[in-house]
Amino acid sequence: MTRDDPFPPSSHDPLLFTPGPLTTSRTVKEAMLRDVGSRDTAFIATVARIREKLLAIACVSQAAGCEAILMQGSGTFGIESVITSAVPRDGKLLVLSNGAYGERIARIADMAGIESTVLRSPEDTQVAPSHADAALAADPATTHVVVVHCETTTGALNPIEDIGAIVKSHGRAYMVDAMSSFGGVPVDFSGAGTDFLVSSANKCLESVPGFSFVIAKRDSLLRCEGSARSVSLDLHAQWCGLVKDGQFRFTPPTHAILAFEQALSELDAEGGVPGRAVRYAANHRTLLDGMQAMGFRPYLTPERQSYIITSFHYPTHKNFNFAGFYDRLALMGFVIYPGKVSQAECFRIGTIGRIFEPDLRKLLTAIRTVLDEMGIPDGS
Amino acid sequence: MTRDDPFPPSSHDPLLFTPGPLTTSRTVKEAMLRDVGSRDTAFIATVARIREKLLAIACVSQAAGCEAILMQGSGTFGIESVITSAVPRDGKLLVLSNGAYGERIARIADMAGIESTVLRSPEDTQVAPSHADAALAADPATTHVVVVHCETTTGALNPIEDIGAIVKSHGRAYMVDAMSSFGGVPVDFSGAGTDFLVSSANKCLESVPGFSFVIAKRDSLLRCEGSARSVSLDLHAQWCGLVKDGQFRFTPPTHAILAFEQALSELDAEGGVPGRAVRYAANHRTLLDGMQAMGFRPYLTPERQSYIITSFHYPTHKNFNFAGFYDRLALMGFVIYPGKVSQAECFRIGTIGRIFEPDLRKLLTAIRTVLDEMGIPDGS
Repeated sequence: MTRDDPFPPSSHDPLLFTPGPLTTSRTVKEAMLRDVGSRDTAFIATVARIREKLLAIACVSQAAGCEAILMQGSGTFGIESVITSAVPRDGKLLVLSNGAYGERIARIADMAGIESTVLRSPEDTQVAPSHADAALAADPATTHVVVVHCETTTGALNPIEDIGAIVKSHGRAYMVDAMSSFGGVPVDFSGAGTDFLVSSANKCLESVPGFSFVIAKRDSLLRCEGSARSVSLDLHAQWCGLVKDGQFRFTPPTHAILAFEQALSELDAEGGVPGRAVRYAANHRTLLDGMQAMGFRPYLTPERQSYIITSFHYPTHKNFNFAGFYDRLALMGFVIYPGKVSQAECFRIGTIGRIFEPDLRKLLTAIRTVLDEMGIPDGS
Repeated sequence: MTRDDPFPPSSHDPLLFTPGPLTTSRTVKEAMLRDVGSRDTAFIATVARIREKLLAIACVSQAAGCEAILMQGSGTFGIESVITSAVPRDGKLLVLSNGAYGERIARIADMAGIESTVLRSPEDTQVAPSHADAALAADPATTHVVVVHCETTTGALNPIEDIGAIVKSHGRAYMVDAMSSFGGVPVDFSGAGTDFLVSSANKCLESVPGFSFVIAKRDSLLRCEGSARSVSLDLHAQWCGLVKDGQFRFTPPTHAILAFEQALSELDAEGGVPGRAVRYAANHRTLLDGMQAMGFRPYLTPERQSYIITSFHYPTHKNFNFAGFYDRLALMGFVIYPGKVSQAECFRIGTIGRIFEPDLRKLLTAIRTVLDEMGIPDGS
């Protein structure tokens, strides 16, 4: 076996090359073969350990004034929880957007009646800190700024540290959507001046979906009291519940949380975020080299590109259609991402989750086979 | 083995006598040992089958003008989704409350800025249809009425059919929180004049927590368009997503959904809701008889009592303290419900989930042992 993995996934499932839900190890899934009481002491201790570990992954701690809060639902629920709990009724949000996930945040603000401005950059670029600087200088009413770290729409990685420095120089609160990057891309929470960071269990932390989590500066969290627009998504109340008796206010996804603790152990075993980053970067490099060798053209220039997910232009050959391409790959056991949210004619391949370079090489071989079957000479 | 169960739970976990998360079968949990793409065709087909089956459990169908919508998060997220999506900005909600879950709905309305009235009945009674009748006659501004079917606070079962007849006679919309009853207590959705019913995966349907679901009259659902106060909890938008391409708008808990399909098969194997109701009623009877034989006093009179969860007064003996009682039982492998939300000095024991009469008899033996250890002669 060329795949040197102490925590292999199930062998009977297709490999997932998506932005999540991802391929997870068998041991992560096996941690779900238990029923525990959500208000029982053993489970409360599990949640406490997880909250501590999440802070450590963000290079912070409770002693350093930070808190980790788990929130039921998908990543979007976590984002909505932060936006609608943190921006007060007289606040104003600046959304730095270069893709569909930035636009979703703007929609969340609109639905909640939160005043906001959206500063848009083209999808094939990064958000420029200088644009944020100009916008903040021009609008003293803005109280909060939010940006997506890895825009999963295209795979573009935004410079959250440089943007954070600008936001802090203007004295505004700073929120980062690190959904598809946290745990795979090193993040300096405090160094970036972050007040709130949101991510999810089923991305680079390689667990199963079911909840998101928020890393917050405690001072910033305390200022959320009374601002929430919803009972379920009240971040401050959720935190107070966890502090009061270690329990969730409402039923947590106990099985997904047991899986998550195992996933965090497997992150440790891989050398933490730096170790995982090496594997993901290698996955991406293998994919990119192999795809380019077949003529496929990446959508982003290399300096804008994350190693999380990569967009490729559709081949121009008349025989190409994405549905056929996707279905043939899926039949061979390789699930790439079927959704297209970018405005460009692109498809996306994720390189995170319990997948390794040999898996990418198998995927590349399958893509070559599918092109041949479809009578397409190359990916250009 | 006296426990005649084709789908036994894991043998190494304590048995959960709670209102959820519950003891589930090993086969339900094993269904989670797979990673599937949330936008892949096989998963989309799973979700479609589940939505159809949920309607059948409610004795309705798409052809009969009804829809089933899954919503990420706990049951409260589902309730908040319905309340904040269904009551329009000029609407008014009447909450018929006889416990903590009714009060939570009132809080949801408050947070969303929805005008509401709370008609409170004592915790140890049922909501009286005549009270609802008088309230609706007195307040023509009320557009929507909501009641909890089984008030898990105490175990009281409210007469949702009779209340529904009153609500419909006044021409108002009717919403039922059937969180802890659906799948275990037969419910005639249409017969009760229900517009929206909410329940959760990890109650009587005996699956793992991670999402809730809503059964809705399609006409009523269509009227929700544009009313939601939140992106994540927008019931109409969630439905439109499921209708458009069979997909969730945001990452679903794929593993919990795979478990749920297995759980629905196991419900079928038990003879559907009528079959499960027989087991739960027998569980409750065994518990009640055994507890009363030890001197414990049930909080509710029999005609108000569900077979879902039962409240007992704390024994009056000076040696009794609930924490000690709970911990000793937990050490013996029996987890009863540690939370107390009722205003009375009571503890609660659930009789739903993958538990059978022999399990109840073991619990009763353990309770007798714990009383002896604590030097308490009886439960009175």
